[in-house]
Parts: sequence; structure tokens; C-alpha cells
Amino acid sequence: MHSASKIGVGVIGTGFMGRAHAMAYRAVPGIFSPPLVPVLEIVADSDAAGAERAHRSFGFRRMTTDWRALIADPAVAIVCVTTPPALHREMALAAIAAGKHVHCEKPLALDAAETEAMAQAAEAARPNGIRTQVGFNYLKNPLLGLAREMIASGELGEITNFRGIFAEGYMADPAAPWSWRLDPAGAGVIADLGSHIIGLARFLLGPILSLVADLETVVKERPTAPGSAERRAVTVDDIARLTVRFARGCGGTIEASWVATGRTMQLGFEIAGTRGALSFTQERMNELLLHRADAPAHARGFLRIEAGPAHPPYGLFCPAPGHQLGFNDLKTIEAADFLAAIAGGAEKGPDFREAAEIQKVVDTAIRSSRERSWLAVG
Amino acid sequence: MHSASKIGVGVIGTGFMGRAHAMAYRAVPGIFSPPLVPVLEIVADSDAAGAERAHRSFGFRRMTTDWRALIADPAVAIVCVTTPPALHREMALAAIAAGKHVHCEKPLALDAAETEAMAQAAEAARPNGIRTQVGFNYLKNPLLGLAREMIASGELGEITNFRGIFAEGYMADPAAPWSWRLDPAGAGVIADLGSHIIGLARFLLGPILSLVADLETVVKERPTAPGSAERRAVTVDDIARLTVRFARGCGGTIEASWVATGRTMQLGFEIAGTRGALSFTQERMNELLLHRADAPAHARGFLRIEAGPAHPPYGLFCPAPGHQLGFNDLKTIEAADFLAAIAGGAEKGPDFREAAEIQKVVDTAIRSSRERSWLAVG
Amino acid sequence: MHSASKIGVGVIGTGFMGRAHAMAYRAVPGIFSPPLVPVLEIVADSDAAGAERAHRSFGFRRMTTDWRALIADPAVAIVCVTTPPALHREMALAAIAAGKHVHCEKPLALDAAETEAMAQAAEAARPNGIRTQVGFNYLKNPLLGLAREMIASGELGEITNFRGIFAEGYMADPAAPWSWRLDPAGAGVIADLGSHIIGLARFLLGPILSLVADLETVVKERPTAPGSAERRAVTVDDIARLTVRFARGCGGTIEASWVATGRTMQLGFEIAGTRGALSFTQERMNELLLHRADAPAHARGFLRIEAGPAHPPYGLFCPAPGHQLGFNDLKTIEAADFLAAIAGGAEKGPDFREAAEIQKVVDTAIRSSRERSWLAVG
Amino acid sequence: MHSASKIGVGVIGTGFMGRAHAMAYRAVPGIFSPPLVPVLEIVADSDAAGAERAHRSFGFRRMTTDWRALIADPAVAIVCVTTPPALHREMALAAIAAGKHVHCEKPLALDAAETEAMAQAAEAARPNGIRTQVGFNYLKNPLLGLAREMIASGELGEITNFRGIFAEGYMADPAAPWSWRLDPAGAGVIADLGSHIIGLARFLLGPILSLVADLETVVKERPTAPGSAERRAVTVDDIARLTVRFARGCGGTIEASWVATGRTMQLGFEIAGTRGALSFTQERMNELLLHRADAPAHARGFLRIEAGPAHPPYGLFCPAPGHQLGFNDLKTIEAADFLAAIAGGAEKGPDFREAAEIQKVVDTAIRSSRERSWLAVG
Repeated sequence: MHSASKIGVGVIGTGFMGRAHAMAYRAVPGIFSPPLVPVLEIVADSDAAGAERAHRSFGFRRMTTDWRALIADPAVAIVCVTTPPALHREMALAAIAAGKHVHCEKPLALDAAETEAMAQAAEAARPNGIRTQVGFNYLKNPLLGLAREMIASGELGEITNFRGIFAEGYMADPAAPWSWRLDPAGAGVIADLGSHIIGLARFLLGPILSLVADLETVVKERPTAPGSAERRAVTVDDIARLTVRFARGCGGTIEASWVATGRTMQLGFEIAGTRGALSFTQERMNELLLHRADAPAHARGFLRIEAGPAHPPYGLFCPAPGHQLGFNDLKTIEAADFLAAIAGGAEKGPDFREAAEIQKVVDTAIRSSRERSWLAVG
Repeated sequence: MHSASKIGVGVIGTGFMGRAHAMAYRAVPGIFSPPLVPVLEIVADSDAAGAERAHRSFGFRRMTTDWRALIADPAVAIVCVTTPPALHREMALAAIAAGKHVHCEKPLALDAAETEAMAQAAEAARPNGIRTQVGFNYLKNPLLGLAREMIASGELGEITNFRGIFAEGYMADPAAPWSWRLDPAGAGVIADLGSHIIGLARFLLGPILSLVADLETVVKERPTAPGSAERRAVTVDDIARLTVRFARGCGGTIEASWVATGRTMQLGFEIAGTRGALSFTQERMNELLLHRADAPAHARGFLRIEAGPAHPPYGLFCPAPGHQLGFNDLKTIEAADFLAAIAGGAEKGPDFREAAEIQKVVDTAIRSSRERSWLAVG
Repeated sequence: MHSASKIGVGVIGTGFMGRAHAMAYRAVPGIFSPPLVPVLEIVADSDAAGAERAHRSFGFRRMTTDWRALIADPAVAIVCVTTPPALHREMALAAIAAGKHVHCEKPLALDAAETEAMAQAAEAARPNGIRTQVGFNYLKNPLLGLAREMIASGELGEITNFRGIFAEGYMADPAAPWSWRLDPAGAGVIADLGSHIIGLARFLLGPILSLVADLETVVKERPTAPGSAERRAVTVDDIARLTVRFARGCGGTIEASWVATGRTMQLGFEIAGTRGALSFTQERMNELLLHRADAPAHARGFLRIEAGPAHPPYGLFCPAPGHQLGFNDLKTIEAADFLAAIAGGAEKGPDFREAAEIQKVVDTAIRSSRERSWLAVG
Repeated sequence: MHSASKIGVGVIGTGFMGRAHAMAYRAVPGIFSPPLVPVLEIVADSDAAGAERAHRSFGFRRMTTDWRALIADPAVAIVCVTTPPALHREMALAAIAAGKHVHCEKPLALDAAETEAMAQAAEAARPNGIRTQVGFNYLKNPLLGLAREMIASGELGEITNFRGIFAEGYMADPAAPWSWRLDPAGAGVIADLGSHIIGLARFLLGPILSLVADLETVVKERPTAPGSAERRAVTVDDIARLTVRFARGCGGTIEASWVATGRTMQLGFEIAGTRGALSFTQERMNELLLHRADAPAHARGFLRIEAGPAHPPYGLFCPAPGHQLGFNDLKTIEAADFLAAIAGGAEKGPDFREAAEIQKVVDTAIRSSRERSWLAVG
């Protein structure tokens, strides 16, 4: 009977994220008891050799160089879009139009107008049972679920401040060459890393109403290729510094940087409430720091909570606390969540709608920085 | 052509470790480019329902309730033994006798005489190409490979001390009930956790020559079942405290405890050398602390090295540093290493021989504690 | 002959800071070999009992209830002003007018116009050998001196970002009563804690050119006294969020909060440069984290530098590294620095001029927040 | 009236510890409200220039080159003995014989027989009101007082293990020259650092009944002077590794090392109990980690308690938590405690008796290591 519950997955793109999707969907059945068992049907890459490599090593049944064929394939019910961002929109819309569920990497598109259109397309398809998922994988950390619950339950009192950061150093070296990340048509770090921390802020605290932003291009021109003497001007932001107001009434700051020398994963936050506080960094993704203001004075401080079975779905990965999830496990949880949503269960998201809301904050930050002024989000 | 390079895997046992083996072998092809591509052929469990569950969710082609049939199956080339320890010996020896490679969980057996016999059986089968692997998965941490290289290269100077600990708290509560871990026929924490830290000591510094040990049963009797008023005497050790001498000339200490309240994964060490030092804890498994004695006085301290692509095979899991491996990834590396060894590549171990040497230290510790005296290992 | 090098100290105020000044000047000769040996001549407090207590326990020769008498006293060459902020200006100006050196607690005065006037008075007295010192004691941490040197020497490359925070939680409880800190005539946390982190930003990176600030009153009214049902409106800021541009060309953020639940001393920063980075928090004031971008890939991360004799004047407190200075030791260094400056040595400051520059940033932040716009500092 | 409560202090020795005593007694009145106000009467050093320097800079009224004169001086009621260890016994006994209170640095003497004789002399003088104090200053950390209370109150349940370490690296370099620490007549690190951690073990958990020890001379010969080609054999221990049993029933380990490369102050412990655990290192002397076994599963871990006014006498140094005591502050607390004991208040110790008990453990460790066997302490 369980063969009835299989669901075909097609992955477009065979880079790091394509592989991550494949590995995640392969891993789900062994860890979760998913209502739908994914089958890796087809992998698509415009480069035949890449498609062949992925076909062989990731365990897909078939391969293609034509992503439209993948979407059209009747055995494919979930389409994973893992290509460079500029291609996401066309593929995702085509998949929705074909009645497929879409699991798309972020950013959905290059600006808020495009993502809004995609969100509307997804919403129009919802009555037909179509579901969407966007790859903000950090949100799948079980400890962030705990953080969200603590905030929502009022355990921390009224929230009074959010300080969010996503800083890495992969572009810190002025000799780091030009890349697609620097495409003048798009945004810079505000989209690449900023969208993650904006998404996390929204995940924990809800909508952002207004902001003032300072986007800075630190390295004004870069080699066109590694070691090249030729330079190309950079116009997108290397650092984004936002001051924000949340709809719930509190304020905060958000920083994104890809020139944060020495940092490889400084994705974190500190949240203060009238009755407690939380502090987190993805650098130690299996730890969440909790302060309770009502602790006795002689035993007050931050409690280092270790991830464990008390934080679902950690226990499905390991029955013992403290044994640690890894980066790739977050993608597996994302895939499992999406399968559950498709099967009619809770929709944990983020879906295209949420991604569009995140993109609005990104776009507003860009405009605010140009206009040097506070702006309402939207 | 690549179909020629497939290799069948049979897993005996469907508990946490059985699942871990299945997931690991499934994950290897997507992450590594293994010379042999594992196929999950058969899973065996004496309990038919368990076997069926594993068959379905872990992705095996077939199932059986007869582990001997699994071993005899011509499609199975690698036999994974993940049953309770008391069954390891018979199964592993049968598999070797049948000309199969064996990937066995630790401990191989219940005492040094048994493990020595198993090591000899494995060695006898080596000329036939048979390889063995024992599940000391923590050794697969890329940062421990770095530590070993630094020691071997002389970068830390002459090693002068080792302080090793593996402490967890899962038996700390006196109300924690009796379990198979407490079987009077076996050893207690010295085998369960101690073998890991002894193995790590040997991995980094080589053989242990002599030791004095203090094994202590902290909780003298435990409920026969959760909440039961009936008590059963405990005779195995809850804490083991060893002082050791290594063949290389330095001394050290090794502690194992399963009554270390509050600890979930305190598997760590500090190693001092005349030119540097290393400090590590599996609690933060993606960090290795390095001190260099020749650093300038104004900038001296411990450097927190973050795991990254510079520490193979991290880069196969993720191209960016600092993104973090998890506990389950270590098993995947173990499986990949075993496949490479079977294909004639480097044998990274630990194999049955190494496991037997570890067990000798365990047994010597038990005797030393009984005799209250220093003893040579062996 | 050394009796000629004594110098009389008078302290106005006997609260926490009055005591801190007394202890610091008492401690200097035993730790430093100061060119001038301070003698605790007179302590002044308008409350006779307080003056008497301080006289007796802090070791002053005399006491008075008249601060003008203290300033006029010919035996007093250094006047320490440690009263509530509203009194600083009058006392400090009187002391300067009387030809005395002035060691004043921060803030010098309540706004930038007043502090500017004080700075000008101090500058006018400089040709007469008069020196001033302001109690930004955190700047005296030896590790911050190291940080400043590393930045100035170019060891970190070009500085690209500053993230500075001074957050504590002493006003986080909405039931915390009204106090002088909340005086509507002054500024709130931007002056109380913000001035310290602004001073630190300037100490490390130089002048701030422009900023946009968001000052927020989180707790809109507070009990007039502990437990009182009567409420009084709060108009000053509980949190200040600044985005800034430095004259040297880089940008950054500065946050000050006294409603940062759970934090007692989160005074810290992270500075990124093209060749390295620094991270610091006063919570672990004897540690400075340093990243060097040119470290080999396999041994890259943050180095935890421990304070020691390589970081003067640590070695005068303790000959061994890692033994740790405490909060009060910083005040002792401040006093020693001031004595050295008075004796004609290096003027490490911060003096009244520097305090006035800090206050300009504070005032600009207040205006920026009111006007919701970027403003030039000044 | 308060002039009646002054008490004269004489300090023998003007090295680091002599200065520390002088600074501590000078600081006490400004921080504590001591029942006896110390007056720095005389400082003694056999070297006249050293005595003169100390006289001048530490603020003593007089100086002498004759320690016997200091002891005989009627203005001196407290004699501080801070000379090299070989001189402690004669000076301390002479002071007791003269009816003076004695504040002696550790070790009291070179072996247990000598310290026992000193303890007996101190006890014989007790009826005359004579009090003694030994400089185990680390015990004065307010957080260790909290740890002791938590253990004594049963808050951690029954204690099941102690892991204690005092490791530094000041002798790690084989080129570090011979010094008085290496005197063959005495003990090595077991006395120098080991006595501190043994004292801490006793402070927290009470007497040690038996032990087995491994004392190792890592660097077998050292230059007779810095850079010298001449070598001198070292016979005392560089590392001491103890396994111990406490009278209260639990076991543990104690390690002392002065060849712990990279460590400057690794004085710490982890204590497990059936209901909780504590972890501490002097490297972060203002933090104590506490685990409570009854915490809810979703919020379990180690709480980082920050030192603050809730941990007396921290609040006398600073009214705000988290502002941090330093190494020298511990000596001030020690002096204040001794003054309180002399005035008839609580005797917090450790006194000569306690130091003699610590020395018995040291001596037993030396014998155990020679005999390679477990020994009863005493």
C-alpha cells in the first residue's frame, strides 16, 4: 500500500544546491516517517556532462538537459529549482503552471515586483493543492523553533529589541574576483545574506514596518577574474546596515556583510524581552543562550541550551542530546517539512508569499539607502 | 561501465546504529565519488516487523529475519553488524568466514581474548582482500585528522601530556534503570565510552604501554525497570579514571564517565607539546584550539580553528568553511573510508586489529582497578 | 628628594566613583613608579556624615563639606569631580579657574555646548600646565591599547566596518523606578553608556563624520520610587541605534541599551579590515580575539589573546599572563596616566577636548533621531 | 575612637608577593569596613635597596634589613611572610613565638613534617588569640564560595566526581632555565600549583583519604641560566597526575602541570552530583557554570553565572554585576578575611592547620609516585 504514497522529485541544477536537494530528499525517508516518500526521478542540467554526473552520483532515475521536459514529466510532482537566481522566476512559474509543487532556492527573483508576482501565482494555485517552499534553510534549526515558541508564549515578556547579524568574509579580500553575486541588476549582500537574517527576524518577531538602511560598496572594483589585472566596477552592496521597526512595536538592527573578515557563519541574533533574553549564533548552531530575568540573583546568567530530542525533529536524527546536527541536516528538515505540507499537514514555510515579504524588506533597504531616509516597507 | 563498481551492503540490526549505517551508505555516493557505489541489498532483524520497517524506510531492496541468510547472500559484499555487543563476535566471524567485508559497531566483543581472536581472523582473511572496519565514528572528524597530522609532523614539538575525557550524564540519575549496558559479564563505561577516548588517544599518540586505573561503581543498585521499586545490583563501572604511559614516552590521563551530570558529549582532549598545544571537545566538534609557543608575546593564545574545506573531506559536504558537519556526517565518512579501503585504497581504520588493541587497554584498566596497581597493557 | 614629587589630590563626591578615585590614587604608587606620588589630601561631600565616612575609610588627611574650599586649598593640585553629572561643569570650571588639574567623571556636562565650553576652558589653561582627564575608564584596558596599535599599524589592512555595542540590563525591568538617569533635561542611555562606546569607536578609529540614529524610549513610564503605584513619564532614550560614517572612510553601527535583559557588561566591538579582524567584549575583558586573513587555510580562525605583561601596563599589576585585571584596575591605570600627563609625559587622555567631541556625537544622535534623518556630526 | 582599632602590619619580602600583601592591606579599608584598620608599619628585605624601594613605593612607615627586628617591633601585630619558601618556616615560627599573627605565603614549608610542626605551633598559640593565614588566594574568589555553599546545601545532590586541574606553561619550554622551583630538596609542581588545586578540592569537598599519583619530570635537565650551555639535572616533578578518594565517599582526579604549553591559568574543576554539576576555570574567574538536573528537557544545559553583588564580597568592590574582579582583588579579600579573623570574627582560613593538611596530600603524592602504589593520605 505504501507505494501509493511515493512522490516524484525533479531537481533543476546540479551545483552545490542541486546536490543538497538531492541528498536531502534521499535522506528524508530514513530519518522521518514522511507521509510521502520521495523518489528521485529526474535531474536536469543544461550541461550534459553535469547532468550525467548528477544522475550517477545522486541516484536519480533519469537525467535531462531540458528543464522544461523535467517540469512536463508526469512522474515529477515536486520541482526543485536550484539554478542561479536569474533563472528562478521563469522555472518556478512554469512549474506552478504545470501543476507542480515548487521547492525553490532563494532569492526567488531579483526584485520585489517579481517575487510578488510569483507569490501571487503560488497563491492562485493553492486551491489546486499546489505548495511552495523557499530554501531559507537556517530557519529549520530546531533551536530556532524553540526560540520562536518562547517568544510567542510570552516567556520572555514583551520583546524590546532585536539585534540580527549575518556576516561572512568570503568577499573581504579586495582581490576576490568579480562574480555573479555582483551583478548590477541585482542586490548584493542585502539579498544574499541579508534575506536570511531578515527572514529570521520575521520568523521570530513578525513583520517589519519601516527601516533606514545604509548599503555600502566597500570594494569599489574587483578583478574580472582571479589574478587578473583587469578591473570591473562593483555597484552592489558589500555591507548593509539596517535600523528597523517591527509591527509588534519593538525596534532593532539588522546587519549583513560579506566582507566580515574572519567570519564564516556569523548568523545570529540577540533578542531582549522584559522577562528574558535569547542569544544565538549559527557558528554554534546546536546552542541557544537563554536568560531568565526572574532567576535568583545568585544564579543568574545565560543558560546554554544544547540541541536535543526535546527540540523536534532533532530526535529523529539522533536519540541523544548534544550530539549535534550539521548544516546539511537543515536541508533535510526543509525537505521533510515540504513533504508534510504537500500531504496536507502543517505548512511551516517559508513559502513564496513569505519570500516575497522578505524581498520587500530587501528592496526597501536598497531604496532607503539611496534616499538616505527612513521608509515604510512595501 | 560504472555498474561494475557497485557493491552490495547488508545491515544486521535495525536500531539507531542500523539506521545510521543505512543512512551513511546511502549518502556516500552523493557526497564522495566512491570507487565502489554501495547498494542497500538486505536488512536483517530477528523481529520481522522491525525488518519490514527498516526495509521500507531505509531503502533496502530486501529484508530477512535470518542474519545468516544475509551473510550467505551472494549479493552482499559488506556486512554491517549493528546488533547488541554480545552478538557481534559470532556475526562478524561468520561474515569473515563467508568472505565478506565486515563493518562492525564497537565493542567488537566483550573482552580482549575475544577481540584478539577476531582480529586474528580478520588478519587471516586479509590476503583474500577482506577488510574490516569498526565504528569508532568520532575518529572521522576532519579536525582530528588535522590534529594527528600536526602531532606527527612535529609541529607541536615533543608531546609531553595527554588529558582525555569522555563524559556523559545518561546514567547520572540514580533512578535511571538497569539496562544491557550494566551486564555483569561485560565492562561498564570503560567499554562504552572509554573505548572511544582510548581509541582517540591511540589515534593521536600511538600505543599505551602501562596504566593504573580506578573504576568505580557510583550507583550501587538501580531499579530493574523505570519506576520500579525492585532493585538490581550494579557491578560494572560508572566512572573510570586512568593514568597512562604511552610508548612514545609521554604520560597522560584518561577519564570515562556516564554519570557526568549535565554533559552530553564531553569527548575531548588537551595535548601539550614543547612547541604547541591542542585542545578539543566534541561538544564543539567543528572547532579545534591550537596554541603555538613561538607566537609573538603580544598575540599569544589559543587559535580557534573552524572546520572547513582545508580539512578533507569537509569540502565534499560543504564548499564553505564554518558551516558545520554534524554527528551523522561522521558515519558517512566512516562508510566512505571503508569503501575506499575495500577498493584497495588507504586503510584509515580502525580495523579489527586496532579495535583489539583498544580492548586490551580496556581489559588492563579493569584488572588494574581490581588489583589497585600499575599494569603493563596486554 | 622624592618628597618634592608628591602631589595633593582632592576628591569631590564620596559615592561609588568617589571611592574609586580614592582607591585608584592610593594604589598607583604601589603598582606604578609614578613621577608624582599622590597624597589623598581632602575629600568633600555636602553631607558631613558621608564626608566623615570617606575621610576615615579612604585614608584622606582631611575632609570638608564645602567643595569650593577643597578647590581653593593650596595643598590640592588635582581635583577629582565625582558628583552627579549636573554638578560637573561648575566644579570643573572652578577648578580650572583655580589652576588645578581636573579629573572629572563622564559626562562632563549635559550637552555639547556645555562640554565645548569646558574643553575650551581646559585648552586655555593648557599653557599654564593644567591637564584634564575624563573617566572613560574602559579605554584603559591594555588589550584595547593593543587593538589600537594593530589598527594604526595597518596590520589589519584597511578598516571596513565597526560594530560597537554597550548594552546592559539595569533598566530592563519596567518596574525599575525613576532615577536621575531619566532626567528629561539630559540624555538617556546614549549619554550614560553610549558615550563609552562612542569614545571607544573614536579611540580605535578616529572621528565620526555623520550618522543616523534611532533613540527609543522602551518603558514609557516608571514608578516614581521602588514599588510605588505612582508613575512618571520617561522621555529619555532606553535604546540608541546608530549607523555611522567615520572620517577615515569606513562605516559602522553603534548600539547603546540599558534595557538589554541579561547583560551586565556587553561593551564590545567587532572590527573588520581587509587583512584581519578584531573582536572584543568587556564581559571577558582580559581576552581579545584576532583574526589574520593571511593565516594558512588549515589553521585559520580567531586567536584568543590573553592579557599579559606584553600588554603594558598589565605587567605592573602581575608578572604572569592570564592572571587577569579587574574593573577597578582600569581606574588605577587612568589615575596613573593622568599623573604621567601632569608630570609632562604622554597625554593618553581622554581629556576635556576628547570628551567634548564625544558629546557632539551624542547630541547629533539625539537630533538625528528627532529629525529621522542623517546628520553631520557637530 | 577608631584609632583604637588600628593594627600594625609588617611585611618580610619585597618581591611580587611582598608587594601584593602591601597593596592588599592598603586597599582593605577603602573597600571593606574592617574591624581593624591596617597600618603599613615596616617592610623588611635583606637587600637594603629593595627595602628602600618598597618602603617608598608601597607606603610603609619604616624599613629594615633585619626580619627579626620587624618581628620584634612592638608596632607590628601582623607579620606577612613573603620570602622564598625555604625561609617561611623559621620566620613564621619566630613570629608566632613573638605573639604575632602570621600571614604566610604557600608553601608553609618544604614537607609535611615541617608544616605539621608549624600547624601545631599555631594551634598552641590560638588560646592567646594568635591567628594564622596562608596565601591560597584563589580560594577567595566569591564564586568559589557560592560553589561551596551549593555543594554543602545538597543542591547538587550527592557528589559523585571531582576533576581538578591546575596547569600552566611557564616551564614548558625545555630551554627555560633552572630556578629555585626546581630545588631537589623540595617538590616540584605538585607543591607549586598542586597545593592550590588540592586546597580547592578540600575547600569544596573535604578531606582526601587516599590516592595514587604519577609524578613525572618531563624536562630532565635544564640550562643553569638563560641561554647557558651548561645543564643541570632536574629531579622534581613537572607534571603530577593524581587519582583520589575523598572521605565523603566520592572519587576524583587532580592534575598539576607547569609544562602545560599555552595555559596561563588553567585552574579549574568540574564537579558532578546526582542533582547537578559545576564547572569552573580561573581563566574566566568571574564565571561559574551550573547545571541543574531537574531543569525541563527543552531548556537544559549549563548556566553561566556571572560574579556580582549576590556573591559577597563582590559588591564591596563594585555595585554592579558583571564588572569583574581581578587577580589582585583576591589578595585583598584574603587580607580582609584575616583581619576579621584576628578581630574575633569568622575564621575563613586557610590557616596553618589547613595548609598542613594540604601538604600531607602533597607528600603522599610524592611517595605514591615513587612506590607506584595507592597510599592512604597522612
